Amino acid sequence: MPRYKLIIEYDGGPYSGWQIQDNGATVQGALETAVKAICGEPVRVHGAGRTDAGVHALAQVAHCDIAKHFVPGRLRDGLNAHLRPHPIGVLSAEVVPDTFEARFSAKKRHYLYRIANRRANLALEIGHVWRLPRPLDSDAMHDAAQRLVGKHDFTTFRDTECQAKSPEKTLDQLDVVRDGDAVNIVTSARSFLHSQVRSMVGSLVWVGERRWSADDLAAALAARSRSACGPVAPPDGLYLVRVDY
Amino acid sequence: MPRYKLIIEYDGGPYSGWQIQDNGATVQGALETAVKAICGEPVRVHGAGRTDAGVHALAQVAHCDIAKHFVPGRLRDGLNAHLRPHPIGVLSAEVVPDTFEARFSAKKRHYLYRIANRRANLALEIGHVWRLPRPLDSDAMHDAAQRLVGKHDFTTFRDTECQAKSPEKTLDQLDVVRDGDAVNIVTSARSFLHSQVRSMVGSLVWVGERRWSADDLAAALAARSRSACGPVAPPDGLYLVRVDY
Repeated sequence: MPRYKLIIEYDGGPYSGWQIQDNGATVQGALETAVKAICGEPVRVHGAGRTDAGVHALAQVAHCDIAKHFVPGRLRDGLNAHLRPHPIGVLSAEVVPDTFEARFSAKKRHYLYRIANRRANLALEIGHVWRLPRPLDSDAMHDAAQRLVGKHDFTTFRDTECQAKSPEKTLDQLDVVRDGDAVNIVTSARSFLHSQVRSMVGSLVWVGERRWSADDLAAALAARSRSACGPVAPPDGLYLVRVDY
Repeated sequence: MPRYKLIIEYDGGPYSGWQIQDNGATVQGALETAVKAICGEPVRVHGAGRTDAGVHALAQVAHCDIAKHFVPGRLRDGLNAHLRPHPIGVLSAEVVPDTFEARFSAKKRHYLYRIANRRANLALEIGHVWRLPRPLDSDAMHDAAQRLVGKHDFTTFRDTECQAKSPEKTLDQLDVVRDGDAVNIVTSARSFLHSQVRSMVGSLVWVGERRWSADDLAAALAARSRSACGPVAPPDGLYLVRVDY
């Protein structure tokens, strides 16, 4: 039975997240409905990252095993046709070895968090960025962010409902880059805890607003306590950008 | 009475265009409602370009005369507050001389047309680009586009309802630039005829699909007949980018 690797872009806005739930539309649910429409049988679609409600993806990766053989381009086109009008696009489909697991074979995950640091209302980016009207010191944010890079116990930056066995993760990159009114936060790691990126971003915004120093951020990390975390950034600005294998 | 210059970003999707109409929401109407809420009197807001239904703006320019004196930043913030939840953002407000006219003082208008040349469904860009699944030869489009640059009778590329006295316009720039799956068409002129950009873009797409050669495009221009035009591109991909004074 061939295994297919799918690369998927989606607007997380209308969904209760990636993972199928009893209530609410999910990206995984929409994909499984489309696969079933094509091959006539229920098929599980396994994602690399379980993005939260409202979180977007530029290139989520998933795999599924389908009894029927497809030319990969035909599978991609068929899935896109059946997904409409969902804001979900299947960018590519390819056959991969049975050993490929979207989630467990992943070596690195890349996320982007987009802030619009401006007083004007959002117009073209509603739901796709976090608008913050007060000026952010993005250099201070970047400098402080480096205190989170490396192997740490990230309990402070972890949702209380996180199911990971260990709160220890190795953060490879956490860069804050300003481009005009845009403040982009680029981060990568083998894997992240539940709400880790949004928790780090919210705390970095406190640094950018000069409520916190870099030392305050480091102290929050060292506290290993969820109550030491700053605000959690809204999902609107968060994108799963890429998964490396 | 001070005259204010406003720079405005908007998502044209929900509107029947810039200009106030008897039926349907308009960008001008939303702005005039916000100005009235602030200063208590009806005020006309004059735009630099009357964008069509569904066409977006990154930096539309408008002017209005308001009896009340405002610190410009306060006017900007007040307009933004009263515009919510409209997808309209007032980027800036400044006091200008009475001789400034958003429409008639404009020296050059810049438009961008965005095509997503891909087979996958749109996800994050729904309503903001024109998706075309068939591969476009963007180099051929760019080469052919140069035949439209300069001073011409653009009757072929003009909506039959266009009210301009003369069909003669001088096109300063018409570049087609590919960046991965994105094909961007960048154009500028002192002014454009009604539907001129979308008419040129649709005809250039026929060149990109190899239905038309550059000579066919030049022949369409020379025909000076609306019936010689290719398809008119949808408004989704069109942005008023900037107005020079």
